[in-house]
Amino acid sequence: MAPSSLLAPAVAAPLTTTLLARYRAVRQQTEALCRPLLPEDTVVQPMIDVSPPKWHLAHTTWFFETFLLAAHQPNYQVFHPDYAFLFNSYYNSLGSRVNRADRGTLSRPALDEVYAYRAYVDAQMEELLRTQFGAEQTPPESFAMLLELGLQHEQQHQELLATDIKYILSTSPLAPAYLPASSDAPATTTSLLPATWLPVQGGVYRIGYEGSDFCFDNEQNPHDVYVADFALQNRLVTNAEYLEFMEAGGYRDFRYWLGEGWELVQEQHWQAPLYWVRQDTGWFRFTHHGLRPLEPAAPVTHVSFYEADAYAHWAGARLPTEQEWEIAARQFQPEAAAGTFLESRSFDPQPLPADAAPDQCHQLLGDAWEWTYSAYHPYPGYARAAGALGEYNGKFMLNQLVLRGGSCATPESHIRLTYRNFFHPDKRWQFTGIRLAR
Amino acid sequence: MAPSSLLAPAVAAPLTTTLLARYRAVRQQTEALCRPLLPEDTVVQPMIDVSPPKWHLAHTTWFFETFLLAAHQPNYQVFHPDYAFLFNSYYNSLGSRVNRADRGTLSRPALDEVYAYRAYVDAQMEELLRTQFGAEQTPPESFAMLLELGLQHEQQHQELLATDIKYILSTSPLAPAYLPASSDAPATTTSLLPATWLPVQGGVYRIGYEGSDFCFDNEQNPHDVYVADFALQNRLVTNAEYLEFMEAGGYRDFRYWLGEGWELVQEQHWQAPLYWVRQDTGWFRFTHHGLRPLEPAAPVTHVSFYEADAYAHWAGARLPTEQEWEIAARQFQPEAAAGTFLESRSFDPQPLPADAAPDQCHQLLGDAWEWTYSAYHPYPGYARAAGALGEYNGKFMLNQLVLRGGSCATPESHIRLTYRNFFHPDKRWQFTGIRLAR
Amino acid sequence: MAPSSLLAPAVAAPLTTTLLARYRAVRQQTEALCRPLLPEDTVVQPMIDVSPPKWHLAHTTWFFETFLLAAHQPNYQVFHPDYAFLFNSYYNSLGSRVNRADRGTLSRPALDEVYAYRAYVDAQMEELLRTQFGAEQTPPESFAMLLELGLQHEQQHQELLATDIKYILSTSPLAPAYLPASSDAPATTTSLLPATWLPVQGGVYRIGYEGSDFCFDNEQNPHDVYVADFALQNRLVTNAEYLEFMEAGGYRDFRYWLGEGWELVQEQHWQAPLYWVRQDTGWFRFTHHGLRPLEPAAPVTHVSFYEADAYAHWAGARLPTEQEWEIAARQFQPEAAAGTFLESRSFDPQPLPADAAPDQCHQLLGDAWEWTYSAYHPYPGYARAAGALGEYNGKFMLNQLVLRGGSCATPESHIRLTYRNFFHPDKRWQFTGIRLAR
Amino acid sequence: MAPSSLLAPAVAAPLTTTLLARYRAVRQQTEALCRPLLPEDTVVQPMIDVSPPKWHLAHTTWFFETFLLAAHQPNYQVFHPDYAFLFNSYYNSLGSRVNRADRGTLSRPALDEVYAYRAYVDAQMEELLRTQFGAEQTPPESFAMLLELGLQHEQQHQELLATDIKYILSTSPLAPAYLPASSDAPATTTSLLPATWLPVQGGVYRIGYEGSDFCFDNEQNPHDVYVADFALQNRLVTNAEYLEFMEAGGYRDFRYWLGEGWELVQEQHWQAPLYWVRQDTGWFRFTHHGLRPLEPAAPVTHVSFYEADAYAHWAGARLPTEQEWEIAARQFQPEAAAGTFLESRSFDPQPLPADAAPDQCHQLLGDAWEWTYSAYHPYPGYARAAGALGEYNGKFMLNQLVLRGGSCATPESHIRLTYRNFFHPDKRWQFTGIRLAR
Repeated sequence: MAPSSLLAPAVAAPLTTTLLARYRAVRQQTEALCRPLLPEDTVVQPMIDVSPPKWHLAHTTWFFETFLLAAHQPNYQVFHPDYAFLFNSYYNSLGSRVNRADRGTLSRPALDEVYAYRAYVDAQMEELLRTQFGAEQTPPESFAMLLELGLQHEQQHQELLATDIKYILSTSPLAPAYLPASSDAPATTTSLLPATWLPVQGGVYRIGYEGSDFCFDNEQNPHDVYVADFALQNRLVTNAEYLEFMEAGGYRDFRYWLGEGWELVQEQHWQAPLYWVRQDTGWFRFTHHGLRPLEPAAPVTHVSFYEADAYAHWAGARLPTEQEWEIAARQFQPEAAAGTFLESRSFDPQPLPADAAPDQCHQLLGDAWEWTYSAYHPYPGYARAAGALGEYNGKFMLNQLVLRGGSCATPESHIRLTYRNFFHPDKRWQFTGIRLAR
Repeated sequence: MAPSSLLAPAVAAPLTTTLLARYRAVRQQTEALCRPLLPEDTVVQPMIDVSPPKWHLAHTTWFFETFLLAAHQPNYQVFHPDYAFLFNSYYNSLGSRVNRADRGTLSRPALDEVYAYRAYVDAQMEELLRTQFGAEQTPPESFAMLLELGLQHEQQHQELLATDIKYILSTSPLAPAYLPASSDAPATTTSLLPATWLPVQGGVYRIGYEGSDFCFDNEQNPHDVYVADFALQNRLVTNAEYLEFMEAGGYRDFRYWLGEGWELVQEQHWQAPLYWVRQDTGWFRFTHHGLRPLEPAAPVTHVSFYEADAYAHWAGARLPTEQEWEIAARQFQPEAAAGTFLESRSFDPQPLPADAAPDQCHQLLGDAWEWTYSAYHPYPGYARAAGALGEYNGKFMLNQLVLRGGSCATPESHIRLTYRNFFHPDKRWQFTGIRLAR
Repeated sequence: MAPSSLLAPAVAAPLTTTLLARYRAVRQQTEALCRPLLPEDTVVQPMIDVSPPKWHLAHTTWFFETFLLAAHQPNYQVFHPDYAFLFNSYYNSLGSRVNRADRGTLSRPALDEVYAYRAYVDAQMEELLRTQFGAEQTPPESFAMLLELGLQHEQQHQELLATDIKYILSTSPLAPAYLPASSDAPATTTSLLPATWLPVQGGVYRIGYEGSDFCFDNEQNPHDVYVADFALQNRLVTNAEYLEFMEAGGYRDFRYWLGEGWELVQEQHWQAPLYWVRQDTGWFRFTHHGLRPLEPAAPVTHVSFYEADAYAHWAGARLPTEQEWEIAARQFQPEAAAGTFLESRSFDPQPLPADAAPDQCHQLLGDAWEWTYSAYHPYPGYARAAGALGEYNGKFMLNQLVLRGGSCATPESHIRLTYRNFFHPDKRWQFTGIRLAR
Repeated sequence: MAPSSLLAPAVAAPLTTTLLARYRAVRQQTEALCRPLLPEDTVVQPMIDVSPPKWHLAHTTWFFETFLLAAHQPNYQVFHPDYAFLFNSYYNSLGSRVNRADRGTLSRPALDEVYAYRAYVDAQMEELLRTQFGAEQTPPESFAMLLELGLQHEQQHQELLATDIKYILSTSPLAPAYLPASSDAPATTTSLLPATWLPVQGGVYRIGYEGSDFCFDNEQNPHDVYVADFALQNRLVTNAEYLEFMEAGGYRDFRYWLGEGWELVQEQHWQAPLYWVRQDTGWFRFTHHGLRPLEPAAPVTHVSFYEADAYAHWAGARLPTEQEWEIAARQFQPEAAAGTFLESRSFDPQPLPADAAPDQCHQLLGDAWEWTYSAYHPYPGYARAAGALGEYNGKFMLNQLVLRGGSCATPESHIRLTYRNFFHPDKRWQFTGIRLAR
C-alpha cells in the first residue's frame, strides 16, 4: 500500500463469504437505526451540521455505487441519473451537488424510494461479489480495501445518524423519544470512582497505527514524538463536576475562555451543555429516550472544545494533546474495555462503576469523544490519495481539533486507540466530553 | 357591525345545518388538497415564505380551536398544550411561537398526529354547533361571523397550500408531479384574442365592498375616489408576450426597472419568471403536473411586481392602480366569468378562447393575481378590530402592494372584485400576473 | 418642456448675470456648511445612509461637470479621469461606481483635492456662462433648466450634509458640537399653543405643482383627487407630547405598531427617537450644538414612519395622506411662514409661539419633514425623462413614503407646498416629525 | 519571573537614562511612520482587520497610560475619561469598548487631539521615570518589564501601521504613494540564487526562547521536541515562481487546496495574491510607493496560508512546522542577516543576491512572515498571566497559524528566531510569504 493511499492494508484478503456477511451486517445496522423513525423525521435539517436521515441512507449507498459498482461492475446502470447530484457529499472530483445547507429542503426522493435505492445497490453488490469473485476466487486486495472503506464510511454515518436523529427530535417542544427508556427509574449512582492522575514519564514515544487491519489514512505513518512528563486523569469529567463549574459562574467569567469561545458564549447565550434543560425539579437532558433527569455520575457530553477548555482552566488543569492521550491510553488501558457503543442502543455514556481500578485509564473507548488540544493536521509523511478518495480526509486538515476515544454512538468495530476524529471547536451535537491532563 | 370589526356582517345568520355543511366542505377541501402528498412533502420549508403543508393543516385548525372552541365551548380541553406555541402564525396577542424561518425544522408532531388534531377539533366544532345552537336555535351573529372568518381563513391557506406545494416539489431535480396531467399533449392554442384597450371616463367612482355577505375588513368602508380618464387591457399578458420582452433584453436593461428591482435582478440572477426552465427544445415551466412545455397563449404567472412593472415600461404602458382596476372590472365584467379556480384542480391559468368578446374585460377572477401599482394601505375610516383579530390584516398595511382578481389557486367561493390581496414586490411564488393600463 | 421631463419650465429664462450670482451663492453655501468640519469629519460613513461630507462636496461638483460642462463646454477636460467612478451616486446610465456602502473607506482624494476640484469646475462654469452666453446673450432654456437642476440638486445635498454631519458627530462619545450654541441657557417655553383640528370639507381638489418656476418632475402633472371630510392638526407634535407616549409604554406595546415596525423596535431596541439620551437630570438630545436638554415645546424630530404611525395610533388619530396634507396646507397656510430653515444655522426646529393663531396651520415649511401615509408613487401621467436624468427620481418610486413640508435643514429657496420628499419608513436620521390627521 | 508572566526577565535592569532614550526612540518612530499621512488617511477602516492609523496612535498611548501611569504615577489624571472606551482594543478586564468593526466610523477625537494625547502621556512618562526612578535610582524590574512590554507592543503596532496604511491607500483607484519610490526604474534582478534543500537530521531538539532579553510569553518555556529527518529551502519562494503556479491554473484546480481554502477562492474570486494587478504590460503590485511592476526575483508576499499551502502542494513540497523552521533556522542562519526591516522604509522585500551562499538559510528575518503548518497553541507549561495582561496572547491560542521570521515591516529590534506571530489562515494584508519544506 503506497503511503499516499487512504487506508492501510487489510492483513489477509478475507474470503467473499466473509465480505458478504460483513457487508450485510453493516448495511442492515444502518436501516435498523432508522426503523424507529417516521418518514417526517428523515427529511428535516434543523441546522447545517445535521443531515436528514434519508440523506445518510442514500449517501452511503451512493458511495458504494460510485466507488465500487461504477468502477467494477461491467455495464452497471445507475439507479437514477440525478442521485449523484443529490447524494454526493463533498467530492469536487465527482461534480456539482446540492448545497449542504439545502439538504433539508428536499422532500423527494421519498423515503421509500431511498430504500428501493438501497435494495438495488445491495443486490448489485451481492451479484458483483458472487459473480466476479465467487466462492473460489478472492477479490483483489484493492477491491477488498475499497469495500472495507465503504463499510467504515457507513459506520461513520451510523454515528452521525444517531447524533443527527437526537438533534432532530430535540427541536420539537414535544420532546419525543426515539426509543422507549429501558427502565422508568434508573438507579442513580451515588458513589463514584475518585479522579486520580496517571503519570507518564517524558521521552520519545511512537504513535500512529502500526497494525495490519483497516485504518484511515490520517492515522497512518507511525512516527516518534517527544513528550515531557505529564499526567492524565483516569476517568472522564462527570455531569456533577461540570455542574460545579456552571454554578461557580463558569459561563459568566471571560477569564476561563479563549477569545473566540467567549464571543460565542455571548452570541449564543450558552449557559450549559447542549440538551441541558433546567426545570423546577432540577436539571434534565434531552436524550434518545426523551427528557431524562441529569445523571450526576455520568460523563458530561455535548460540550464544545471551548467549554471543555474553559472547564479545564477553571479546574486548574488543561486538555491533553493527542500524542499524550495516545501514549497514556496505551499504558493504562484496562484489560476489559467497558464502553457502551452504538450496538448497545443506550446512546448515553454510563457512569463508571465505583469499584473500577483507580490506577487504570477508564472510559477510553465508547463513552464520549474526548477533545484534545491538538489541531487536526497531517501526520509526518502524509499524502493525499489520488482521485476522489484523496478528498476523504486530507482536505479537512485545518481549523479543526482532534478528538480521541469514540463515543456511545460509535460502532464498536469501528474504533481504536489511534483513531483521529475531528470537529471544529464550536460543535456540540456529537457526544463530546472532557478528560483532564496536567 | 362596528367599523373596527374585521369582517362585514353576514346578511341573515345562516342556520346551524347550513353552517355545518359549509364547515365540513371547507375542511375536507383542505385535506383533499393534501391527499396526493407524501408525509415527507408536508414537512419541508425550502424558503421562508413557504410553510410546510403539515403546518398549514395544523394552523388552520388552531385558528378554530383558539378563536371559537376556547371562547365558546365550556370547559374545552385543548388537544395539546404545546400546539399554541407550534401553530400560532403571527398573533402577538396570543404569545410566543416558533420562528417563521424554523417551521421546516420540525418533524414532530407527525402528519398523522396533525390529522388526529383536525379530527378532534372537527368533532368538537360539530358538537359545539349541535349542542349550543341546535336545530331550533340560531347561533348569535358574532359567532357566525367568527366561524365564517375561520372558513375564509382556511380558504386563504388552501391557496397557500397549492402554491407552497408547487414550490416544495419544484426544488427537487426529479421534478415530481403533484397530480398527473389531464392529457399528455395539450393542444397548444394557435390563435389568441388580440389585446384591446377598454376606455374608462374620468370622474368620481365608489369603490370598496358594499354587499351584505362576508368580506374582509380591508375592503370595507366603500368610499369615493376620483380617477382621470384611463384604459385597461381586456386580457392578461401572455407567456408569448412576456417572452418577447425577455428576448428583447428586458432583464439586461436597467432602464425598464425600478431601482430596487434592478438590484434584485442582478443579485438573484433573474432571467425569466420563476419556474421557467430553458431546455434544448425550448422553454418549459415546472407545474403541478411536472415539467411542461410553455403554453404561449396562457397568461404569464410567477412574476414579481418588479418584473410586471418593467414589462409594462417596455410595452409602453403601465400597471393600473387598484381603484382603476376595480372601476374597470365592474364596467366590463363579462356575464360568465371563466376562471379556472382551485376547485378545478388545473392549477394553471388557461388561454383565453380566441372568440371571446373583445370589448369585455376577461380573466378578471380565477386566473392570476394582478399586480397593481397601489400600496396596500388602509381605506379611509379603517380601524383595526380589538383583540387578536385586530392583527389579522391591519398590521401588514405597509411595504406591500395590492393584487386583485384571484388566481387559478383561489377557491371560487372566496373571491370577488373588491378583494384586496397583498404581497411584497419581490415575491414570485404565487400565481401573479400582469394586466396593462394606460 | 415635455411633461415627462425632470423639471418644470422656468418662466422666463434668467439673465446670465442672475444665473451666475445664483450659482455662486449656492456653491458657496455648500462650502460654508463644511467650513466648521475637520478633514477627519469629511471622510467617515458611520452608516450606509450617511455619505462622507467630502463625497457630497465632490458629487455635487461631478453633477455640474457631467451634465453641463461635458455636454456644453467645447473640448472640456475632466478634472480627473477616475472621479466619475468615485463620485457618481446612482446613475447606471453613467457607468460603474464605488459601492455606496464603501464611500467611507476612501481617504483619497484628500479634502484639499476635492476643494481644488470644486474650484476648477466653478471656474469652468463661470467661463462657460460668460463666453457661451455672455452679457448680451441668454442661454437656451434647456441649459438654464439643467443649471437650475444642478443648483436644486446641490441644495438637496446641503440638507443631507447637515443631517449627515449631525450623525457623524453623534457617533463619538465626546459629543462634539458642530457649532457653538447661540446661548448657553435657552429659555424653555412654558406655554404652548394648544393643538386644534382644522376641518376640510370632502370633495374633488387639485394637487400638484401649477406654477411656472422650478419644480421636480415628481410634483408635476397637477391632477384632481377626491378626499372625504377630514381634519388636520394646526401644529406639529411636540417633544413633550411624544414623551407622554413613551412614558405610557408606547415602545413596549405591539398593538400600536405596524408588524414590520414592531420587529424593528425589538431588533434595534428602540426606546426613544434617534439622538435622545437619558441622563440623570432628564432627557437630552444630541444636536448640532452638542448635547442639549430636551425642549418640551419644540416639534419632535428624528422619528421613523413607524414611530410616527404608532404615536398617531396611541393618540387616537392617524397620519394624513399627502393629498390631505397639500389640500389643508393650501387652505390654512399662515401669511408669514416662520420656519427656521438651513440658512438660519439653527438646525433645530423651534417651539411655536404660544400666541400663534389657533385656526391656521403652522410649522408647515422649514421645521420638520412630515411623514404622510402615502406611498411615493408616480403622479398620473408621470413619465421618466430620457437619459441619465430619468434616473433622478423615477426609479425610486416604490417602498418609500412621501414626506411634506421641509425641515430646519432645508434651504428656504428650495421648498414649497407641492414638494414631495421620500424616505423608507425606518429612516430616522433626517429631521422627520409628526402632524396628526383624523 | 514566574512562568505565568507575559514576558521573560530583562537581563540587567537598564538605567533610567537608557529606558528614557529607548522610550523616546520607539515613540518617535511611530509618529515618523504617520508623518506622510493626511488627516483623512488616519480615520478610515476599509476592512475589519485594518485599524485607522489614528486609532493605532492612540491605542499604543492608552497602553502606557493604563498599564504604567495609572498604576505607578500617584494621582495620575487620565487625559480624557472617554479614551479608555475608545482606545481599549480587546481587554475584557478593562471594560467595554468600541466594536472593532466601528473603529472607522469615528472622526473624533481629531488627529491633532490624538497627538496632544501622545504628548501628554509622553510628558507624564518622562516625569514618572525622572522623579520616581531618577538618575541614581533603578526602577524595579517589574516596572522595567512593563515598560519594555509597552515598547514592544508599540513596535507590533508599527508593523500594523505599515500594513494598514498600505491597505488604506490601496482602496483608492488613484493608487496614491505613501512614499516616493527611491528610484524610478529599479534594476530588475536577472539572475537568482537557485533554491536548494538544507537537510536536517531527525532527533530531539530544544526550541523556545532561552536568552535573557525580552521575549513574549508565548515563546517562553524552552522544551524538547522530536522531529524526523526533513529539509528546508534556503530561500523564500519568489514572485516568478508563484506566477508559474498561477499560470499552471493553480487557482482553478481544487486538488491543490484545503477544503475551506477552496471555498474562499471561489467566494472571493481570488486569482492572484493581494495587491497584484494585471495590466496590459504585465503584472503590477500596489506598494507603499504606488503601483510598481512585479519584481520577479523578490519573495512573493500577501498570500494567505491557503495559497501558501496550495502552492506547496503544486510544487510537490509542503510548508514546514514551526519546530522545523526554528531548528533549521538555528543551524543554517547566515552570519549577516540581510532583511530590509521597517527601519529601511523600503516596505518591500528585496531579491536575494545571486551570489549568496547556497548552503545557508537566507531571508530568515525581515523579509516576509513565513506561514508554518503549525497551529498557534500554547507551548508546554504555558500559563496566562494574572490580570489584564493575561489577555495579551493567551486567549488567541486557537484557530490561528504560527508565522515565523518577521517581515520588511517588522522593526529590526523587535524580531528573533523564536518569535511566534499568528494569523488566521485567510489573512493576506500582512507581508506573508512562503518557504518550502519536505
